[in-house]
Amino acid sequence: MNIVDIILDKRYGRELTYDQIMFFVKGVTDRSIPDYQTSALLMAIVLNGMNEREMTSLTLEMADSGVHDDLSYVGDVTVDKHSTGGVGDKITPLVMPLCRSFGSKIVKLSGRGLGFTGGTVDKFSSIQGFNIDIPKEDFPKLVKECGMVISGQTPELAPADKVLYALRDVTGTVDSIPLIASSIMSKKIAAGADAIVLDVTCGSGAFMKTEDRARELASAMIKIGRLAKRKTTAVITDMDQPLGRTCGNIIEMQEVYETLTGNGAQDVVDVATVIAARMIMMAGKAGDLNEEQLVCECMNRLNNGKALEEYLTLIRSQGGIVDDNGPLYVDEPVELCRIKSKQSGFINGIKADEIGHASVMLGAGRIRKDDVIDMGAGIRFLKKRGDEVKEGEDLCVLYTGKNSKIVKGSEHYRDIVSRILNAYTIGDIKGPQRSSVIDVLTEE
Amino acid sequence: MNIVDIILDKRYGRELTYDQIMFFVKGVTDRSIPDYQTSALLMAIVLNGMNEREMTSLTLEMADSGVHDDLSYVGDVTVDKHSTGGVGDKITPLVMPLCRSFGSKIVKLSGRGLGFTGGTVDKFSSIQGFNIDIPKEDFPKLVKECGMVISGQTPELAPADKVLYALRDVTGTVDSIPLIASSIMSKKIAAGADAIVLDVTCGSGAFMKTEDRARELASAMIKIGRLAKRKTTAVITDMDQPLGRTCGNIIEMQEVYETLTGNGAQDVVDVATVIAARMIMMAGKAGDLNEEQLVCECMNRLNNGKALEEYLTLIRSQGGIVDDNGPLYVDEPVELCRIKSKQSGFINGIKADEIGHASVMLGAGRIRKDDVIDMGAGIRFLKKRGDEVKEGEDLCVLYTGKNSKIVKGSEHYRDIVSRILNAYTIGDIKGPQRSSVIDVLTEE
Repeated sequence: MNIVDIILDKRYGRELTYDQIMFFVKGVTDRSIPDYQTSALLMAIVLNGMNEREMTSLTLEMADSGVHDDLSYVGDVTVDKHSTGGVGDKITPLVMPLCRSFGSKIVKLSGRGLGFTGGTVDKFSSIQGFNIDIPKEDFPKLVKECGMVISGQTPELAPADKVLYALRDVTGTVDSIPLIASSIMSKKIAAGADAIVLDVTCGSGAFMKTEDRARELASAMIKIGRLAKRKTTAVITDMDQPLGRTCGNIIEMQEVYETLTGNGAQDVVDVATVIAARMIMMAGKAGDLNEEQLVCECMNRLNNGKALEEYLTLIRSQGGIVDDNGPLYVDEPVELCRIKSKQSGFINGIKADEIGHASVMLGAGRIRKDDVIDMGAGIRFLKKRGDEVKEGEDLCVLYTGKNSKIVKGSEHYRDIVSRILNAYTIGDIKGPQRSSVIDVLTEE
Repeated sequence: MNIVDIILDKRYGRELTYDQIMFFVKGVTDRSIPDYQTSALLMAIVLNGMNEREMTSLTLEMADSGVHDDLSYVGDVTVDKHSTGGVGDKITPLVMPLCRSFGSKIVKLSGRGLGFTGGTVDKFSSIQGFNIDIPKEDFPKLVKECGMVISGQTPELAPADKVLYALRDVTGTVDSIPLIASSIMSKKIAAGADAIVLDVTCGSGAFMKTEDRARELASAMIKIGRLAKRKTTAVITDMDQPLGRTCGNIIEMQEVYETLTGNGAQDVVDVATVIAARMIMMAGKAGDLNEEQLVCECMNRLNNGKALEEYLTLIRSQGGIVDDNGPLYVDEPVELCRIKSKQSGFINGIKADEIGHASVMLGAGRIRKDDVIDMGAGIRFLKKRGDEVKEGEDLCVLYTGKNSKIVKGSEHYRDIVSRILNAYTIGDIKGPQRSSVIDVLTEE
């Protein structure tokens, strides 16, 4: 077998065999296949596609390119959750305590943010004392003690995916359903959970810009899940505007606390409860409740303190400091300015990607992997899609940390402000509204 | 400008701008664009195509990636000739003296053979004393003295094409009309001739297996020629069976001599005279003759010794030794065996690629660039397509040089024989015939 024949097969639109995909992934992992051949094959896959059998082979081979996490110590059905990314996405810190309150045990590996997409690891890192880098050998102890653990992604999972992803990033081959689906699913499968709930975001702030593409990706991952024997559900959610009232790190964790004390934004509550309900069902912890009742009960538990209690247990379990007003943070967000509307009308859109970029420019995210985040930086939205606004009224508040170097009135500052203003679409009449949970897809 | 955006543009099927193509070719030439990005773009070009404007930009930029040969010393219109390759292709040694006999001056750069395709350089090298590696500074002197010069390809022409070709070879991106057309045309343009006649072969022994593909390639190169302001004609010729009566090196040059003494095979005469006539017209040496008359006159000159005279002048001019029976060769082909037909019937096909491979196995060609050729090795065809054959009658004669290590009866020998036998298709009824010159295409 040789890689040129494999490239030619895909170039001419033929289905790759399991052995060909195994040969390819092994060659990528041990670096025996040079990057120029890998990138040619990636482009051929992008343009000629892969069927579900090929995607599953690719997924399983990438999962097998490194270690598989063994979650048998949990002693129960494990359900993992993954989001395809967004702006203001604070769902993980909400679903973990919700699921736990029904008796689920949760082992969650999360990522750091890059580009305009925030990362759950960074958000938890904004809590004083919170240790997000838990060594794997300590997971069983933490799961035993508090039923939950969250940690930064360990580098050993699916190393082939790491190589491929780095190459895709520089060869114009990132946006491809088979490659995205197999990349996500390979890491989820290597992470060892029995079942997977995928939050597939769509809209300006998501990787999938349209609902159709999001459905396509969701469907691909569900098919891979079925062939790989992992129960998989995908929840299609709206990421055309930022999720919730905030975007940043500390201020997003503050919003998590607001949500857990009964003051959540509608979209955040909707997404978190639908995903949590699905995870609880798949973990077999729903008891007599059907899915609808479960969603209602999740809402109750956001309001009655049951989820909050589990959340604080998680924070304390990993060293986070909590006082009577909730967790303490590593910094104090300081108001930089308020952005006022230049016109009256209805907010018909807030481009989430533009907001995400502005947030990165404020210091809340990274452009390069080694950029240092300003935990205090972020944006609080006072108006969202569907709201009426008057000329001169505040649209949002910008924050930075105490030591921010951003100078009001500087060119950088003006860039941020104009970027945010440009993100808003304001019209004379109220445009169509969109539900934050668009659909729940599961294998037939 | 950055290469990832260029890859993305082509990936999404957009037309690349002239600046983008210039950026790409410069980056390929100075090696600032890594191979993995180049190969991704090549695959995107293969699958999404290029229009004639893009192909022309790519061609001109590749031509400009190295030096251009300056043919102004010729002091006349220069016409170049290129064949897309084949088995038994001995057209160049015939058209050079034909054109010269009409007063054209010819500067010809030729290549060495690789794989089953023979090379004109190797064929001339089979003549005793013939110097095929003429330094460029000696061209003017030779052109002045005898009006013709032929030399091995110099490495400096279109270095970007060299890099791209090496990468295409290992990334499954060789077979692509825009890439083949721009590769050929970039070298022809850098070689400096005013006009170009392309022999675009089609069939089993050609790179283009079908007439449709050959027409597509021819049309692409003619379009490039028009936009690049080089008059370009393409002659579509049949390469479904080997051309002429021989394939090898010495024996092909012997066939050239036979052809120049009025004993040429019909297909060789047809192709050589049509191409020569076209070259003579483009060089403005046709006088009062129209194309049809010119073809006839070329045939006359193959028979009346005028072309032979020019041929011998060329051979002597580059040091080749000639006696009363024509050129002397570096070896003497020795008959190895005769291959006899296993059945009676009509020869309806001789797969040229299989014959080419068998010829390489006999020692007449190279698999790797540094393989040494047995100049005496080759095949003489006693029967061609359309001929009737009886069981046990000779189909062809195999030759090797005096020092060949091929042992009759060995496994290697038996492989050669069975390969040649398999190349013949013999049927009970005479199949459809095909003209050796299929069409002549020129810009409208």
